[in-house]
Amino acid sequence: MSDLLWQKPGVEVDARIQHFLAGDDVVLDREFFLHDIRASAAHAQGLRRIGILSDAELEGLERELAQLGDDFRSGAFVLDERYEDGHSAIEARLTERLGDAGRKIHTGRSRNDQVLVATRLWLKEKLARVASLSREVAKVALDRAQVERDLPIPGYTHVQRAVVSSAGMWWAGWAEAFIDDAVRAADTLALVDCNPLGTAAGYGVNLALDREHTTTSLGFGRMQVSPAYAQLSRGKFELAALEALGSATLDLRRIAWDLSLFTSAEFGFVALPAQYTTGSSIMPNKRNPDVIELMRATHASVAAARTEIEQLLSLPSGYHRDLQGSKGAIFHGFGRGLAALELLPALLANLEWREDRMRAAIDPGMYATDVAVEAAVAGVPFREAYRAAAAGAGSAGQGRTPEASLSARVSPGAAGDLRLDALQARWEAL
Amino acid sequence: MSDLLWQKPGVEVDARIQHFLAGDDVVLDREFFLHDIRASAAHAQGLRRIGILSDAELEGLERELAQLGDDFRSGAFVLDERYEDGHSAIEARLTERLGDAGRKIHTGRSRNDQVLVATRLWLKEKLARVASLSREVAKVALDRAQVERDLPIPGYTHVQRAVVSSAGMWWAGWAEAFIDDAVRAADTLALVDCNPLGTAAGYGVNLALDREHTTTSLGFGRMQVSPAYAQLSRGKFELAALEALGSATLDLRRIAWDLSLFTSAEFGFVALPAQYTTGSSIMPNKRNPDVIELMRATHASVAAARTEIEQLLSLPSGYHRDLQGSKGAIFHGFGRGLAALELLPALLANLEWREDRMRAAIDPGMYATDVAVEAAVAGVPFREAYRAAAAGAGSAGQGRTPEASLSARVSPGAAGDLRLDALQARWEAL
Amino acid sequence: MSDLLWQKPGVEVDARIQHFLAGDDVVLDREFFLHDIRASAAHAQGLRRIGILSDAELEGLERELAQLGDDFRSGAFVLDERYEDGHSAIEARLTERLGDAGRKIHTGRSRNDQVLVATRLWLKEKLARVASLSREVAKVALDRAQVERDLPIPGYTHVQRAVVSSAGMWWAGWAEAFIDDAVRAADTLALVDCNPLGTAAGYGVNLALDREHTTTSLGFGRMQVSPAYAQLSRGKFELAALEALGSATLDLRRIAWDLSLFTSAEFGFVALPAQYTTGSSIMPNKRNPDVIELMRATHASVAAARTEIEQLLSLPSGYHRDLQGSKGAIFHGFGRGLAALELLPALLANLEWREDRMRAAIDPGMYATDVAVEAAVAGVPFREAYRAAAAGAGSAGQGRTPEASLSARVSPGAAGDLRLDALQARWEAL
Amino acid sequence: MSDLLWQKPGVEVDARIQHFLAGDDVVLDREFFLHDIRASAAHAQGLRRIGILSDAELEGLERELAQLGDDFRSGAFVLDERYEDGHSAIEARLTERLGDAGRKIHTGRSRNDQVLVATRLWLKEKLARVASLSREVAKVALDRAQVERDLPIPGYTHVQRAVVSSAGMWWAGWAEAFIDDAVRAADTLALVDCNPLGTAAGYGVNLALDREHTTTSLGFGRMQVSPAYAQLSRGKFELAALEALGSATLDLRRIAWDLSLFTSAEFGFVALPAQYTTGSSIMPNKRNPDVIELMRATHASVAAARTEIEQLLSLPSGYHRDLQGSKGAIFHGFGRGLAALELLPALLANLEWREDRMRAAIDPGMYATDVAVEAAVAGVPFREAYRAAAAGAGSAGQGRTPEASLSARVSPGAAGDLRLDALQARWEAL
Repeated sequence: MSDLLWQKPGVEVDARIQHFLAGDDVVLDREFFLHDIRASAAHAQGLRRIGILSDAELEGLERELAQLGDDFRSGAFVLDERYEDGHSAIEARLTERLGDAGRKIHTGRSRNDQVLVATRLWLKEKLARVASLSREVAKVALDRAQVERDLPIPGYTHVQRAVVSSAGMWWAGWAEAFIDDAVRAADTLALVDCNPLGTAAGYGVNLALDREHTTTSLGFGRMQVSPAYAQLSRGKFELAALEALGSATLDLRRIAWDLSLFTSAEFGFVALPAQYTTGSSIMPNKRNPDVIELMRATHASVAAARTEIEQLLSLPSGYHRDLQGSKGAIFHGFGRGLAALELLPALLANLEWREDRMRAAIDPGMYATDVAVEAAVAGVPFREAYRAAAAGAGSAGQGRTPEASLSARVSPGAAGDLRLDALQARWEAL
Repeated sequence: MSDLLWQKPGVEVDARIQHFLAGDDVVLDREFFLHDIRASAAHAQGLRRIGILSDAELEGLERELAQLGDDFRSGAFVLDERYEDGHSAIEARLTERLGDAGRKIHTGRSRNDQVLVATRLWLKEKLARVASLSREVAKVALDRAQVERDLPIPGYTHVQRAVVSSAGMWWAGWAEAFIDDAVRAADTLALVDCNPLGTAAGYGVNLALDREHTTTSLGFGRMQVSPAYAQLSRGKFELAALEALGSATLDLRRIAWDLSLFTSAEFGFVALPAQYTTGSSIMPNKRNPDVIELMRATHASVAAARTEIEQLLSLPSGYHRDLQGSKGAIFHGFGRGLAALELLPALLANLEWREDRMRAAIDPGMYATDVAVEAAVAGVPFREAYRAAAAGAGSAGQGRTPEASLSARVSPGAAGDLRLDALQARWEAL
Repeated sequence: MSDLLWQKPGVEVDARIQHFLAGDDVVLDREFFLHDIRASAAHAQGLRRIGILSDAELEGLERELAQLGDDFRSGAFVLDERYEDGHSAIEARLTERLGDAGRKIHTGRSRNDQVLVATRLWLKEKLARVASLSREVAKVALDRAQVERDLPIPGYTHVQRAVVSSAGMWWAGWAEAFIDDAVRAADTLALVDCNPLGTAAGYGVNLALDREHTTTSLGFGRMQVSPAYAQLSRGKFELAALEALGSATLDLRRIAWDLSLFTSAEFGFVALPAQYTTGSSIMPNKRNPDVIELMRATHASVAAARTEIEQLLSLPSGYHRDLQGSKGAIFHGFGRGLAALELLPALLANLEWREDRMRAAIDPGMYATDVAVEAAVAGVPFREAYRAAAAGAGSAGQGRTPEASLSARVSPGAAGDLRLDALQARWEAL
Repeated sequence: MSDLLWQKPGVEVDARIQHFLAGDDVVLDREFFLHDIRASAAHAQGLRRIGILSDAELEGLERELAQLGDDFRSGAFVLDERYEDGHSAIEARLTERLGDAGRKIHTGRSRNDQVLVATRLWLKEKLARVASLSREVAKVALDRAQVERDLPIPGYTHVQRAVVSSAGMWWAGWAEAFIDDAVRAADTLALVDCNPLGTAAGYGVNLALDREHTTTSLGFGRMQVSPAYAQLSRGKFELAALEALGSATLDLRRIAWDLSLFTSAEFGFVALPAQYTTGSSIMPNKRNPDVIELMRATHASVAAARTEIEQLLSLPSGYHRDLQGSKGAIFHGFGRGLAALELLPALLANLEWREDRMRAAIDPGMYATDVAVEAAVAGVPFREAYRAAAAGAGSAGQGRTPEASLSARVSPGAAGDLRLDALQARWEAL
């Protein structure tokens, strides 16, 4: 490891302890490095605006920061254990290249607000991705709901056959689910869209930093005013972001469950393109829907990330090193969560219904509710109609067809009146 | 237990199994009962509008529902184990009092949408309370920040003395925190503000229910369109609501940590009014800040409620009995969470700073950062200024006062420029 | 509320605050009250042995404690909000009945060790129940494994048909699972089987309490030596107990999942006696396996209880009021967990296989692994044999029967060599 | 990626999907690779013993497996994304080097039991480490308890000064805590100490595998009999192991909390060697106890790992790809957990008490409990004695010394009778 920024003469460094302190921190910082560089440039501009840097110094810093970003992307600069963390690496590089201008970059900031602003920018990017992927999923679902509005499929409660349903209803449900997920991601993005840069170690500095400039130039919606709150929001905002992601991955878990059952031999309602399946090392006959299962498993990683941060946040206010753990957690949670969501639109677009199997699974008892409601409409009190239908549930379906049942299902949102226009309108507004 | 709605002749009921199935469900339903009654009235109105009920039937139902609500509030009607659940209790009572009109109330609905709408109304009420309490807390904090803007207090990082801070900065941090919590509660309220009534068991019904009417008359912002999604939102919305609550209770956990330390003999910065403390059964000398500790503990209950629901939601779509567990969870989480938040505004308004202790805890090293920044302003590259100040950290404070340090802390949001107007403006907009 | 033990003159009590402090504590104490009474008697005996009480005082205390227990069981004494908690209620009652002897009962103890010993005895009782129920489940599974060793059933991986299996293999798996759960419950019981009584508020007292006596007379395996650790074990032992319970409820979650699928129309492998199912309020045709679903949901409550305690335990050593939250958590977790496990043995004993459906679900491809292994035995390198079998997977089963496949499955533990004797031996040793 | 073991001709592979399927699996497999190699050798020996392999084939396989292990350790062989996973890499390498003998290695096994046995061996190793580290911590604590039995320190409850305590009592508490943690790790090790190799994909094979041989040669305590249970134990055993680890890291969290307070300026009871502290990038005066804070944060990672696995385990029996997630989780949890525990013994051995600060923090009210108990011994009913002492709490300490208070604290386990011999005896028996 290179010299530690804060190293004091005469203090021995113990390698095992340094290793423990470092953890995988510098490796994780790769994830946030470009954001850190971007924020460092904004900070330098701010320093120029209040006279701490000269034009030449700023120009040098901006040039070298841009170069560092290029080198990092190209692999010419590797962020590794030689550095204590990404923040120190930036200062070290700038100092190496520019001398005093590099030694000035940290004026008025702390690694505390540096990591806050870098992870904040990262979170915004990830939340925007959750929103756009949820929007994509909703679009596929809306489109297929429209096309497959009349395709009959058994409707289940308790994994027991309940009433006739339609593929249209199934898709519309997921459409509305992912529209809500997109809304939630956008709300969360707005919540965290505030600039912590310029709050230093949680108490500000004796320097009139131009926080309005950094707020605007980094594209934040507002300034995070209080330095104390900037520190309190570490972990809190990460949790909020993971919870917004988790809303989508929980829906993913449930759609994956549906598909896991539907692709079983017993249900057999869905055929997946072969590339979504894998084989077994011992059983020659297998084609397993591993993609679906890994999608289902994804929420566990998001939940784990949440747990990791929530468990940390039992602390007094102010920075504590415990909070470092939040970096790995968001990296893990969003890494897994987005990887799964990225594949979902195409998977949904490509799955094929096996209509014969679905029709075959609609048994006559599934019309009993229709029968009871019809009787109720005809004036029989519903509870009586229900009992009569229950007594004759087996024969209820005589002469009935799925198509007729679906078209008569006219309560708003049901198969006979899907109200896709209402969902479409919300989707457009996303 | 009274007759089960769905009971079929010839099926023996096993008492132990019925007891297991019931759990504490009917007791929990007390919490949601008035909402269920209110939604039942809206449903009856809807049935009248599509001709399922006569005017006289509707009138009877509305009257008896109102009476049932009154009887429940007064204790004349007790919802207990005689009923399978609150939903059945309503139908049973209406049938007992009104005969066929009671037998008709369940036309076109299922207990599935009945519990959804009752808990949805309940969640909206609780989220509104989280928002208003967060707003109250923020108000106390804003007001005290204004008044105590110049009161010096040691600033900590790592529970180590860092720089001089002010009570104003401490309060402003909590103000911004609880403003965000209020925003989040409001966002979440808007997310869940959609009417599931009329979606039946997740597939709608063969009846053109007037869902627009129930949506409007129950005060919902929009219709939850898809019956499939209504089912998928069970648990999902409860989680979202608990997460919004948890945002506030996590902040509460941290403010309680501050106060736990500040009320210790060692810090001694805060004096709590005696009614916030309790004694020991064995140690005559103790006055313990139990209220603060129970506030700190509150988030654990919210987190537990989250866990309970999240663990349930690994299911295919459609209703499953597992989801019943979500009722007890929200009751537990919001019960504890709101109880703690209710006490917070007064606790914060009443706590007293012990200025002498706070001043005594400001040691000279705490000016070292000021010194380094001043040197940086004077042209010394910050990293050099830092090293110089580190070398002389002990003597850095010579001749400095907390007041001067605070008034020079002019970065936006810091003690010398708290920007309370910006926070006040966000607070007004809540 | 009656007088508070620790109340000091001149301190006003605020009703809202007292209500918050009390929470549902006294109600929860009902659960532990008889254990508290039993431990109080042991404590009194110990005080007699060191001369703090006279024979007559001890006799009076023992008599009144026994009477209090009887009154509590009969309902003549109700533990409710009139008391601060169960501990105070005992002292108040003894003082009311016996005067000074009652005022002496708390000599050398604190409510801290009082609640520890009461909950410790309770935890031991509950863990013993987890062990014995796990043992019962294992017994049913072992017995049915023996009887149904040759009953063919499709074997799944990924919810996809894999190879022929047997009901015997299915049962043997659960037998071994619940044997392990019983072992774990017993290990945990041994871990927590230590007496905290006599540690007072975590620092002991200036009195040579006869802790050996209370340890023996309360049936503890050893003394919990350190008063500091007695406090540190609050929550820690509760967590350990919940984790042992959770081992069983996680297995329950998975067996419930199997049964949820097996009772679906699509699988149709299992018929449940009607009393394990319920109906729908709207769909006359439904018989839903609610018991199975609530069993599946049970682990969520255990997990929630774990979360609640784990989240609390981020504290310095020594007692903190936060820890009060652990009482409600264990009550909730064990209440739900044991209720579900109680029903499991009979459910398993009574479920019926539908052999025709199971045989019909065994398709020819399920013999492909057998074919490949046979070829490997004959000398074809396995990977080649696998590829050959894969190429002809569809026709692999020609002329094969489930019975022959099962009897040839002779790897130890497999259908042809179940090794139930080994499991039986471990079961006997429980 | 190299050829997939199970690849079928004609199925297109989609790079994005393959990437998603792979995840970081092969990288994680590095952690388990040597165990996989070791178990592969045992499997090969077993195959020789039942005639599937010739002596020459076995010899070749053993030689090449040993070579592969050496190459892996030296870096000559790199396990990376070229391989689907570690299991396939072994088979590929053996096939490349040995031809048909390599193609035979997978006879009678599946990657399912291969990963089970590798992770099982790994878990055993890690649990043994938890046990031995807990034992080391307990030893340091026992030794310092002996040496510092008379060193006075304030005893706290609620972070409020309670009674005089001793460093001896503090250490003895941690000694007993970590003895229990060692016991628990050992119990858990015994629970998971069973061999899953030879269970194939959860249904065994049509080959009389010599599982007794692999059980013995791999050092397992017993065979995991049921192939179905081998699959069911995936995740279940990982959870048990993480819970045992978590018992130690929760104690670590609490000892770290003590040290975080004790190293603050306000308490000032403990001085940490400089190598355990770090500086700030902005505040020249800071020496922060980051090591302690990262230790405190460690449990969050263990808890996250638990969450990740627990969330996965809502599945029917049999293998599902979801379970792959358990590998990363144990790697993360044990990686962090053990790293922190490794540093703990030296940290505890090296921390220095600041006796002057501790004595100064003992105020007179802390003798009030002693006074009350003394009065109780003299015959005043305790509750009266308590009230008298409360009234005069301020003056209670007159003429008293910490030393006298400690030596009079003779309840078993307290400062005057620490009973270290009892703890030492349990420690010896570990």
